[in-house]
Formats: sequence, structure tokens, C-alpha cells
Amino acid sequence: MALKNIRENSYPDWYQNVVAAADMAEVSSSPGCMVIKPWGYGIWERIQHLLDEKIKETGHDNCYFPLFIPLSFFQKEAEHVEGFAKEMAIVTHSRLSNEDGKLVPSSPLDEPLIVRPTSETIIADSFSKWVHSYRDLPVLINQWANVVRWEMRPRLFLRTREFLWQEGHTAHATFEEAEKEAEIGLEMYKDLCINDMAMPIIAGKKPEYDKFPGAVTTYCIEAMMQDGRSLQAGTSHFLGQNFAKSANIKFINKNNEPEYAYTTSWGVSTRLIGGLIMTHGDDEGMCVPPKLAPYQAVIIPLLKDKSKEAEILAYAEKLKNALKEQSFGGERVRVKVDSRLKEPVDKMWEWTRKGCPLIIEVGPKDLEKNAVMWRNRIHINNSAWKNFEGFESFVATISDKLKNIQDEMFERANERLCNNIVTDIQTPEAFEAYFANNNVYLGGNGKKVAFVKGKWCEDEATLDKLKEMRLTIRCIPFEQSGTEGVCLLSGKKATLDVIYARSY
Amino acid sequence: MALKNIRENSYPDWYQNVVAAADMAEVSSSPGCMVIKPWGYGIWERIQHLLDEKIKETGHDNCYFPLFIPLSFFQKEAEHVEGFAKEMAIVTHSRLSNEDGKLVPSSPLDEPLIVRPTSETIIADSFSKWVHSYRDLPVLINQWANVVRWEMRPRLFLRTREFLWQEGHTAHATFEEAEKEAEIGLEMYKDLCINDMAMPIIAGKKPEYDKFPGAVTTYCIEAMMQDGRSLQAGTSHFLGQNFAKSANIKFINKNNEPEYAYTTSWGVSTRLIGGLIMTHGDDEGMCVPPKLAPYQAVIIPLLKDKSKEAEILAYAEKLKNALKEQSFGGERVRVKVDSRLKEPVDKMWEWTRKGCPLIIEVGPKDLEKNAVMWRNRIHINNSAWKNFEGFESFVATISDKLKNIQDEMFERANERLCNNIVTDIQTPEAFEAYFANNNVYLGGNGKKVAFVKGKWCEDEATLDKLKEMRLTIRCIPFEQSGTEGVCLLSGKKATLDVIYARSY
Repeated sequence: MALKNIRENSYPDWYQNVVAAADMAEVSSSPGCMVIKPWGYGIWERIQHLLDEKIKETGHDNCYFPLFIPLSFFQKEAEHVEGFAKEMAIVTHSRLSNEDGKLVPSSPLDEPLIVRPTSETIIADSFSKWVHSYRDLPVLINQWANVVRWEMRPRLFLRTREFLWQEGHTAHATFEEAEKEAEIGLEMYKDLCINDMAMPIIAGKKPEYDKFPGAVTTYCIEAMMQDGRSLQAGTSHFLGQNFAKSANIKFINKNNEPEYAYTTSWGVSTRLIGGLIMTHGDDEGMCVPPKLAPYQAVIIPLLKDKSKEAEILAYAEKLKNALKEQSFGGERVRVKVDSRLKEPVDKMWEWTRKGCPLIIEVGPKDLEKNAVMWRNRIHINNSAWKNFEGFESFVATISDKLKNIQDEMFERANERLCNNIVTDIQTPEAFEAYFANNNVYLGGNGKKVAFVKGKWCEDEATLDKLKEMRLTIRCIPFEQSGTEGVCLLSGKKATLDVIYARSY
Repeated sequence: MALKNIRENSYPDWYQNVVAAADMAEVSSSPGCMVIKPWGYGIWERIQHLLDEKIKETGHDNCYFPLFIPLSFFQKEAEHVEGFAKEMAIVTHSRLSNEDGKLVPSSPLDEPLIVRPTSETIIADSFSKWVHSYRDLPVLINQWANVVRWEMRPRLFLRTREFLWQEGHTAHATFEEAEKEAEIGLEMYKDLCINDMAMPIIAGKKPEYDKFPGAVTTYCIEAMMQDGRSLQAGTSHFLGQNFAKSANIKFINKNNEPEYAYTTSWGVSTRLIGGLIMTHGDDEGMCVPPKLAPYQAVIIPLLKDKSKEAEILAYAEKLKNALKEQSFGGERVRVKVDSRLKEPVDKMWEWTRKGCPLIIEVGPKDLEKNAVMWRNRIHINNSAWKNFEGFESFVATISDKLKNIQDEMFERANERLCNNIVTDIQTPEAFEAYFANNNVYLGGNGKKVAFVKGKWCEDEATLDKLKEMRLTIRCIPFEQSGTEGVCLLSGKKATLDVIYARSY
């Protein structure tokens, strides 16, 4: 079935099909875990590269902390464990024994070990050894690592038992400095999403009920997927002194008094790739923004005429080398010549499904005319999708082409976001009616679930109503109108603006 | 106690002290695991960067496979599990429950999961899904990951329960191609060790008894540590059809017949950092070869005179920016200005202990004379260690300076290796006497254990003798003399040259 038809029937099925069509990842034989394939991992490497630069530029150093966290560490942080207790992999044995030809776990551990679901507790333990005086602060570190949460309904990239992420962890001498740091973390993610991933986001605070377990404040960025649901793209937590108290991160402050440090943590994961797909994918497969594409241009040589094979391959290589001399976003252009023994048309569609931004073909005629034939992936369904251009002109404008694609992808996604934030719902009745009538994604032209920006009174009693409506409060946006209105859940007077949406 | 005195008493203590002095890693509260600190992790990032380039240039793509391997996968590969069965972390539960305020593992898994000690079995499972025809071959992939082996006597970098590594895994249509690939893997490691790490190695094959569990051939590189012991720095395995058979990686070959694929695997780990320390460390701490140094030069501003502070800081920044414009090894020079509020002399010794190749001080006099004062870390104990040089001249020669340091570090280590391979032991008696008299490292000028290059008859009976002498056969070097002689263990006639040594 064509992706278009699949999308019209079921957006989740379309998603799964795009992941497969682009050959980005697959379900593994290890229950709930994924295999990230070269094109998917290549995109992750690009995210890592771009974000790692921002992390280092803001003064953070990379470190590596243990995969295993002693069970007793969770015991210390009661509120924290409450949030994770349901979903952890636990190591209890350290040996396999052979019993009548059958392998069985043996050598039970004195203390079970938790495979890290996140590393606040084990990193706070290190901080408590490193920090003695205000002179030792701030500690600004980050790690790139795998983490495990025992998801019961895994989905590739979005929700797998094991996933890859970075987690920043910092400790500070003052409340203000740590709060500021949590904002710096969020700013990096905003920059990554908007400028690198071409994925617009709404930034704000999580409501109390949805904070990270143990946090004082959780900041977040929320992205609108094509089906109108919201994906939490990144979070940054101001942890106050909570983790410092349970791990004993104590220092002598400038007044010569002992004080607990103020800590933060912030992370984004391979989940971002799921967001990327549901922001930019189309009915031909994936579209990767140029800044994240492992290859920004692929050159397919047309080799039907055996006598011209060597010449055409040389021409393709010449084009590749010329393009690699050009820059985009401060880096050399990434180009591949795909000379595999396959039909050119099959290769063209393979790179279309993968979402390579520019797909170039060079054959005998192009060689003769010193020209190239190229396609812009995001317009590949469009009548204007086939372009002929002279070699020099194409090479000279590659940076502009990539920039235009990057910009257009952001504009397109941003327009979708802006057009789908409903702001004119004023009463609980209208609110309920809106979601009752719009709870199914209806494809390209159909109506779909949107974000509703409206008032919330913050009463705990409203949470049941939310649950009943299968809705969540995605965030309390930093941009607040300050006007008074009616809470869309309780009907009470309220001034706080929040984003209501269905979520991933 | 000074490092020099520690080294004379105990080389292992010296090692541990250098790791601490250079602030590279520390023992963690997670039993047997380490925390890799910024300077240590920065060196690992450099190793990753340089090796990843080689891996990609030779046509391999990065992927990511699951951390957890179902127990049944090990059951399939009998020979393989025999080699690892003693040292694995086993996940048996997926939930923590709160029993009267005490957290306990609950929700036992149907099938226990092994935390990967290496990924042949789980990757072969994917390959079996990817490979159907000879046209799907070769598959050339690599992953950067953490692995776990339940070491009972952990040592930082050298032997920790969790460590970081890369593992290449490939599948091929022919025996010859796969065997060649295993050699390509080893070549990359040789290149990394010699040209990037300045660590000379001996390349060869492992004897049968010491092959990777399940391999047909294990190739290895062995490096001589300063105490004369050998460190296995990297291995590359030709696995024949063994893993293909147990995982059913079957393809239709060119003759239209079903055939099992031929696979390889190859890996190096954070253990290399242990090797780096025991190759280049000295009595002041660590020395990092320029190609691996997170910073190749550090600039310490001398800020005693408050009135000149701004001027000196600006001068330091100007120097940094000028140096960063220079290149070494195809990359921009990496420089840091250390403007922390600390005594300059303390900073100087801190960077000395860390092993930053060039340590520069700029103060009022340097500013006046448009000059810099610099030290070459590897000669910091030498009378010639303090150099004054004009700004322009220093900037213009930074690449040469770094190249000279890199070369000198290799020459020094290579000389040590060459001077400590004993080749004139001809009889079992002389062999036994040699190791009986030389089994303790005696410090800088004292005698030490060396490598013995001698004959081996390959009889299984010789292995007991080896064990008794606490020796190992490190490798069968690719370079063979072809002469006939006497096996140093059995006294029998033998032609095979092997390297006998104590090992890490």
C-alpha cells in the first residue's frame, strides 16, 4: 500500500512505514529494544555533533558515569524513585551456570543493581566527593549514554526500552545560578530544534503534576507532530537542593557556612529522531533537513552504456570533490557517489525514501553538456522537481540550495504549528466538544487534532477531567497573555495560559 | 610520596597514582565500575574521533544494537558462551516494588537478559534478517558502545566491569574476503596505536588456546608497558562460518546455492587509555601525545598585577586565537586559556600532571617583549625545560613543535620496546632462569621483565608449564624467522617464533 493511503488510514502505521522505508531502524530480537541502522544512526551522529558543540561552548565537559546504580541509591531519593519505580531493568546475578546443558543465572549479587533510567543519583554521588568549597563550584558536566526504562508499549525511536541520549548534570553555589543553568540547557535545545532540526517548538514550564520526579521546576520544549499531537522534545530540570540533600553534596559557602549545592539536569534523546520524522516525513518517506543529513547530496551515475562507464564515474567523482569543497553551516558539504550495482531508478527512490536533500543524476548527456540533473527531495512530488543545471553553476549554488531547503522545511513546519494552535475556545463546553469531534487524524486535507491554548486554574481536581478527555497540559508557555479568562477544565476564573494537547 | 618513589616500590601503585594525579578517572560507588572524568574522557573522544575516521574511510557504517541479549542467544553458541559464562551481568526483573518502605526487585522476566559482554550473537541475529543474496554482502558495520564483563579484580581503564569500546562486525560472501577484512581491522588499530597514540606494537596471531571464543583466527596487537608486561591493545577475529551457522546467516551465492556467510569482529576499548598511561607516563604524571590531547597547549596568564590583568588576558586570548589558526595532523590546534582563580604555579603543575603537551605562561614581561614562555611536557624534568620565544616565531612553529613531540614520544617508546625484546634465550633452562630472576620491576634503571622472542612447539602439554611460570604467549608475530630451534617450554624442535611475556 502506498504511504499516502496508509497515512490516511492510520498515522501511527504511516510512521512505522516511514521508519522502514527510510531504513532508519528496526525492531530487534531483544524485546522492546531497537536496532538503529546506518541512516538513522547517521542522523543521531549529526545531532550529537551539533549539540555537543553547544554543550562544550557553554562550558560543559563530557564525562562517563556507570551504567549500574546500586538499589540503595534509589532508596535514598524517595520522590525520585516513585516516578521511575515501575520501569527499571534490574541486574540480580553475575554469572551463567550450565545446568544439564541449560544456562541459568547464578551468583546472586549482594545488592541488586539498576540499569540507569537516568543518572541523577549516581552522578550526585560523584559530585558529593568532588565538591567541598564554593571554589569547586560550578561543576558542569554532560554524558552521552544509553538508558533503560521498561516501556510496555515500545515504538521505534519514540518509546523503546533502551534509548540513547545525553544528560547534562550541574551543581552550583546558588539557587539563582542553578535556575539560570536550567534555562541555558533549554536554550541549547531550542537552538538545536529550530536551527538544526527545522522543528519549531513551544517552550515553557511543565505543570506541577508533570514535573520530573524530584525536580523543583521542569522546563520543556514541545513540538507539534503532523497529526496534531505533541511530542516532548527535551526537558531541563532545576532540582533545587533535593538531590544534593539525599546525596550529601555539601560545600562551605563564601560566608564559611556549610550549605547544600543546587543542581540541575537536562536531556534529549533518540526520541528526537521520531519527532523529526513526524515533522518532515511525507508520502514518499523521510525528508532530512540538510544540517542533519549524513549526506546532503547523493550522486547517482547512469551507467547503461558500458563504454562510457569510466568517464561517467570520473565525472561523478569530480562533481563530488567540487561539492565537498563548498560549505554549509560552517561545515564541508557531505556528498556520496552511489555506484552500487543497482538500477539508477531504484537508487533514486531509495534516497528519496531516506530523505537525502539533493538527489543528483549524471549520465552521458550531462557529461557532454557539463551539466547535472538534480531533484530537491522536499519537492519530489511537485511538477518542478526535475532540474537541469550547468556543473559550475550547480557547484557554486549548493550552499544556497541547502540553506533554502533548510529554511523552507522550517517555514513549512512553523506554518503548520502556527495554523494549528486554537486560541478561541473560551468555555469547558466548547473545549469538550472540540476534542470530542476531532480525536482522529484525518489525513492531508482532513481536520485534525490541534493544540488548544487556553486558561487553566491549576486545581488538582481538574486532572481527572484531563485524563478522562485523554488530554495533557503540555506546558505553561513562557509567553503569557496575562489576561483573565475561564479555566477550560473547571470553568473557574483563571489567568494562566497553558497548551492543551494529545501527546506522544 | 613522590611518584618516583612510588614507581620504585610498585608499578601498579604508580599507575593508580598517575590516573589520580592526571584526574582521568576514579573508582565509583557502583562496584567495579569507573567514572571517566573530563580529561580521561577527552582523550577517549580523541581516540574515537581518529579511529572513527579510519572505520568510515574503509567503508564501515555506524549502527547501534541492543544492550540486552536474550539468554537463549548464548545457548545457541556453545563455544562462545564457554568463554564468557563466568563474567556476565544478568537482568532478571523489570520492576522495583515497595515492600514496607524497602525497595525490592519484582516482575521477573520470562527470559533473563544478558548485558552484552560483546555483541556477536545479537548482531548476527540482525545480519540473518538483512542477508539473503550475495548481492546483500558484504555488510560492514561498527558500533560505539558500553559492554559489561564481571571482572573480580577491577583496575581503572585496564579491567573494569563496564567499559567503553567500538566493535566492528562484518559479513562476507567468501572465506578469503572475510579473512582479508579481519586484517583490515587490525591494520586500523596498528595505525591508531603507532601514528596517533605513539605506542609501538607487535602484530600477530593469538595461539589456538587464547583465541576469542568461537573464532577461527584471532589477530592481535601487543604493546609493551614500561614494566615490561604486555598489554593486548586490540584484537580482530576471523569467525569463519561459526556465528553464521548458529544465527543462520545464510545467503544464495553466485552459483545459486545456499551458503553460510563468513563473519568477522574487531574491537578496541577504553583499555587503550591504560596502555597510553603505561607507555608515556612519567614521574610527574601523565604525558599525552599531541594527537590525543584534548588540549595541545594551555596558556596560563600571570595575573599578579591587578592593573595589567585585562591586558594580559587579552594577550592570552590573542595567542590562543593565533594558535587555533594553525594546524597539526590535518586539524586545528586545540588551545585553552586557563584563567581560573588559582595560583599560576599550581595550574602549571596541574597541567603537567595531566600531560598537556605544551604549557605556556604569559605575564607582564612577555607582553612587553611580545614573547611567550613555554614548556615541553615531556622534558619538564630536564634542564632545558623553560623556553622563551617571540610571539610570531612561537605561533609559526607550533605545528613543528607538536610534530616533534609526537615523534619523540613514539621514538622513546619504540626504543624501549626494541631494547627489551630478548632474542638470545635458546633453552628451557635459560628461559626459566631468566623469568625466575627478573620477575619484579625494579624501577628506572633497574632490570625488568622483558619480552622473550623464542620458539614454541605448539604442544598442548606446554600450556601447564606456561601457567606455572605465570607467563603467556602474547602472539605469533607476523614476522617469522623461519629458522629451526628449540621450544623454550618443551625443549622439542620447533620453528615457530612467539612472544613470551607477563601480561596485563
